[in-house]
Amino acid sequence: GAVAYERTERNCSLSPPYLPSTGVNTTLRLQDLREQMLPLNISAYIIPGTDAHLSEYIAPRDARMAFMTGFTGSAGTAVVTQTKAALWTDSRYWVQAERQMDCNWELEKDVSISSVAEWLISEVPPGGEIGFDSFLFSLKTQEDYSLNLDSSNRSLKSVPDNLVDHMWKERPPIPPDNLSQRSWQMKVEHIRNQMRDNPYEPTALLLSALDETAWLFNLRGNDIPYNPFFYSYTLLTMDEIWLFLHLDRVTEELRVYLNASCGGSLCVQLKSYDTVRDQLKKYVAQPGVKVWIGTEYTNYALYEIITPEKLMTSSYSPVLTTKAVKDETEQRILRDAHVRDAVAVIQLLMWLEKAVPEGKETELTAVQYVNKCRGKQKDSRGPSFETISASGPNAALAHYSPTEETSRRLTADEMYLVDSGGQYLDGTTDITRTVHWGAPTAMQKEAFTRVLMGNIEISRTIFPSGTRGVNMEMLGRRALWEVGLNYGHGTGHGVGNYFGVHEWPVGFQSNNIPFRTGMFTSIEPGYYKENDFGIRIEDVAVVVPVHTKYGHNYLTFDTVSLVPYDRKLIDTTLLSSEQLQWLNKYYETIRRLVGPELDKQGLQEEKDWMLKHTESLVESGSSVSLLTCLIIDVFTLLFLIWTFV
Amino acid sequence: GAVAYERTERNCSLSPPYLPSTGVNTTLRLQDLREQMLPLNISAYIIPGTDAHLSEYIAPRDARMAFMTGFTGSAGTAVVTQTKAALWTDSRYWVQAERQMDCNWELEKDVSISSVAEWLISEVPPGGEIGFDSFLFSLKTQEDYSLNLDSSNRSLKSVPDNLVDHMWKERPPIPPDNLSQRSWQMKVEHIRNQMRDNPYEPTALLLSALDETAWLFNLRGNDIPYNPFFYSYTLLTMDEIWLFLHLDRVTEELRVYLNASCGGSLCVQLKSYDTVRDQLKKYVAQPGVKVWIGTEYTNYALYEIITPEKLMTSSYSPVLTTKAVKDETEQRILRDAHVRDAVAVIQLLMWLEKAVPEGKETELTAVQYVNKCRGKQKDSRGPSFETISASGPNAALAHYSPTEETSRRLTADEMYLVDSGGQYLDGTTDITRTVHWGAPTAMQKEAFTRVLMGNIEISRTIFPSGTRGVNMEMLGRRALWEVGLNYGHGTGHGVGNYFGVHEWPVGFQSNNIPFRTGMFTSIEPGYYKENDFGIRIEDVAVVVPVHTKYGHNYLTFDTVSLVPYDRKLIDTTLLSSEQLQWLNKYYETIRRLVGPELDKQGLQEEKDWMLKHTESLVESGSSVSLLTCLIIDVFTLLFLIWTFV
Repeated sequence: GAVAYERTERNCSLSPPYLPSTGVNTTLRLQDLREQMLPLNISAYIIPGTDAHLSEYIAPRDARMAFMTGFTGSAGTAVVTQTKAALWTDSRYWVQAERQMDCNWELEKDVSISSVAEWLISEVPPGGEIGFDSFLFSLKTQEDYSLNLDSSNRSLKSVPDNLVDHMWKERPPIPPDNLSQRSWQMKVEHIRNQMRDNPYEPTALLLSALDETAWLFNLRGNDIPYNPFFYSYTLLTMDEIWLFLHLDRVTEELRVYLNASCGGSLCVQLKSYDTVRDQLKKYVAQPGVKVWIGTEYTNYALYEIITPEKLMTSSYSPVLTTKAVKDETEQRILRDAHVRDAVAVIQLLMWLEKAVPEGKETELTAVQYVNKCRGKQKDSRGPSFETISASGPNAALAHYSPTEETSRRLTADEMYLVDSGGQYLDGTTDITRTVHWGAPTAMQKEAFTRVLMGNIEISRTIFPSGTRGVNMEMLGRRALWEVGLNYGHGTGHGVGNYFGVHEWPVGFQSNNIPFRTGMFTSIEPGYYKENDFGIRIEDVAVVVPVHTKYGHNYLTFDTVSLVPYDRKLIDTTLLSSEQLQWLNKYYETIRRLVGPELDKQGLQEEKDWMLKHTESLVESGSSVSLLTCLIIDVFTLLFLIWTFV
Repeated sequence: GAVAYERTERNCSLSPPYLPSTGVNTTLRLQDLREQMLPLNISAYIIPGTDAHLSEYIAPRDARMAFMTGFTGSAGTAVVTQTKAALWTDSRYWVQAERQMDCNWELEKDVSISSVAEWLISEVPPGGEIGFDSFLFSLKTQEDYSLNLDSSNRSLKSVPDNLVDHMWKERPPIPPDNLSQRSWQMKVEHIRNQMRDNPYEPTALLLSALDETAWLFNLRGNDIPYNPFFYSYTLLTMDEIWLFLHLDRVTEELRVYLNASCGGSLCVQLKSYDTVRDQLKKYVAQPGVKVWIGTEYTNYALYEIITPEKLMTSSYSPVLTTKAVKDETEQRILRDAHVRDAVAVIQLLMWLEKAVPEGKETELTAVQYVNKCRGKQKDSRGPSFETISASGPNAALAHYSPTEETSRRLTADEMYLVDSGGQYLDGTTDITRTVHWGAPTAMQKEAFTRVLMGNIEISRTIFPSGTRGVNMEMLGRRALWEVGLNYGHGTGHGVGNYFGVHEWPVGFQSNNIPFRTGMFTSIEPGYYKENDFGIRIEDVAVVVPVHTKYGHNYLTFDTVSLVPYDRKLIDTTLLSSEQLQWLNKYYETIRRLVGPELDKQGLQEEKDWMLKHTESLVESGSSVSLLTCLIIDVFTLLFLIWTFV
């Protein structure tokens, strides 16, 4: 039905334009930026939403796009000319952008680089130059722009100092930091072996993504919210290790841990973060060297230093591909973290079931509650991302997080979606459950069941080792497609061991690497009905070997998230018997693994709740088999009547 | 069980090496080639298996790789150095290569360009140059080689005259030709509109693939076996049309048809085939021009003429993407061709059923029979490719075609696979059926059923318009994967209207374009057990719109091949009720469409055979629903007993 609500989005066709209270006035900032562009002789300036390490989650000090546009979504690109300003972001964020931007900004919805380039070609005069901060472009991005601008007589111009930083008076500083520590020498040797075995004979490996360096040295930091990383680069050669980081943060203890005062091949030479370009230049100037980089996570500023004949590239560095496969210990502790995480989510769901009918809870209080529950679990290190807690129409925005202004009261009349995760010393979690505390509509029930079918179809599928996620992800959509429904986001991403909650290069996207035993990925189909409700069911699963009748080297998924789905929303008549079997087996697993943990933590009420919600579901049978029964029954009846009469 | 057979593959580890009678002695040819390489100062020479139009099917005069290596498979790359010679081909052809090559040649099994490049780096000394005929490289191929050789200090060197042609004394001439004709002006205007609408403002379109020019002018030739093409290039501008072809083959009638004597924008200027490079050079030398090419089908020799700022590229030319979508008339006549083609295949299968037990038929006589049946159909223009007629172990070679030496006698003890197709004036067909005339093993039946399940799962799936085939093709494999089986080839390819039987860019490969209404593709999962049997079930289907409960713009497949599957090989207990429903509906369609055609052609025996083989299949019911029945029955029984006692 129609829901009345205050206008929350800008309307630039009114005069004067209508701006909601969440809109940000960017007129002065744009004026500043445009003044800076004049002496540089650039007709446009590109402001990407990432940092120099091409991180997905960035520190507040790197939120240049948000500062310029007002829009705080996690993906986007802004471009400013002397007369226009435009933001590109994908469908998850269109509504949010309309709420946060003022009318200085156009919203562009095709986020491909070719779309940005087309816009640039139409706005920049022939011969014009387009400025960008080369630290914020991957070389793939730089290449794509060049390719698209090629032959248009417009060109890119690298601008060394970031123009936004110049004018950003209150840019947040780098946070103080304590690096945590474990052991690292074996990892270095393992990566060096891969360098040695490579036929292109690289002499050095440059690590640019923050989780590469953090993984290699078993170090964690807290420069980036929700992600235990610290600003760093590494240059690894066969006999030296150069670690670039902010030296003022290095303790004596860390120096000892890293063997920082010796000069051997397992001694780490600490270098100042800001000297990476100069040091890399010096290294490349030597004869006979060849530097291996992963093109997806190396910024253009470092790439362009390396002359082509001294460069060796792969999409991902050997550190990222090695890190993607968890060893047995890592698998075990990551599974353990999910058992404790399930306790926290079960506590949340049980509490909501009781508290919502009293009418006092909101999206925000639910966030506080689940954070508190996770915080009580062993080795908790806070949430792994900003919790998505969304009721009714808010959940139709796939990546909405509540604020004081938008937070809805939770009621038995609306569906509720909660997507949350925790960082633990032994692992990172990410789980989404969608529930309804009242009477869901038939359509809500059908959509939920079909989303669940998608989750199950991926989870239970058997595939040869080395199959790519992108070639299987349609299984997550197929039950929805059957009735003309779909969702606009990806179907899953890798997950780390106390690392990023989105850990590349594992997952179901086209640039993810093939699945192998020991990889962890989320599986998260969904369905979103605009202005009405949103459904997502997300579990983390590990890739495991499976025995087949005839073949070898086949794999499947084993779900490690352990929280039951809302029974009220499952229409069992839609499920195949294979899907129902999978579901009941999953519920047995929850009982077997989470039951003892609830006992151990003395949570009897939670255990009862869990048992109630993991009772076996019974097959309804298809219409064909019911017909068969009916026929058999009629025959039985006739036979019996004949016998007795 | 173990089957005794004469050794048909070479054995180079014996001394002297063992060569089967099918092996070709290449010693003198290699000597000739190596002598030619010396004055050019090239350390290696690459011999691709394609022609200057990057055709998949090539004329005998372009079979340079086969001439050099002895290996006649349709895909491969040969490389020769002063001391070594190696051939790369994929798994379909490994056995064939071992049968045809002598011990001068190494067989390399990883066909990626990076694998060839690695071999080159290990065999060519630093600073060495690698010769190639730039007419035989797509620019993508050239780029991939360059990328892989980059920074290795080995480089490509274009050698203008093909070295193999120089020494090939008996190279076949270009066949004499009569070009067939229809109308073409509207197509030219349609393509010009796409050029006009393109934001990069191309001034010309260069067509390099043979089916591009043939389609544009509605012309057919016979330069290439099984494919109605003729050697040609086209350069299309807004006010001129240049058609490059062998002028001695142009009749007065064709000149009139093409308006060859005027000078307007719809007049075709005929130019000699050999002048294409020079003419393109002249065109590009003009100011303000920009030439649009499709990178997948333009050879490097033409590409390198176009300076970067005058170049515009897309993977496929607008001719190929336009041709991929058949209009309503084209759809109708292509469906019609399949009805007549089904008559021919039904005649073959019926005849085999009767003739095989008499013990006189072979793989080759089956080929002759099906060719004869097709030849009798209206508008037949011969087979669309060399028929694959393969019994028992021969069928395990996915692309085997019988010869006098290899042809097996057909018996009721072996499975038999026949993959054949016809050219008709109104369309091109391609269909594979696998049958057994005796008692199949349980494993054969299971494998056949799972291949059929794959075919059905793709055929019945519903997907949003614009979904890529590569993201759905796992549906063709999933039932096989479940028990550890798989196949090593693609799952389907586009099909033309009296054009190539493999018509790009439609299909299920990663470089195929997204599916739209009106595209025709084959669907052809399979399973191959080495030295034992082979199964493939191939149908052609057209993409059609489908009504869904909630959404718009959803598509599915409609199968246009109309021949029943071997009932003896279908284990209905493995099929889901959806799969069985699909199958029975398909059989109804065969009856509805092929029945009247058989009547019209007066083929009563064939009609009876078809009716027998398209009888409805009955569901076996799953174990779970039987259990449910049992429980209901027990209750019924108890109730009745209670009533009566």
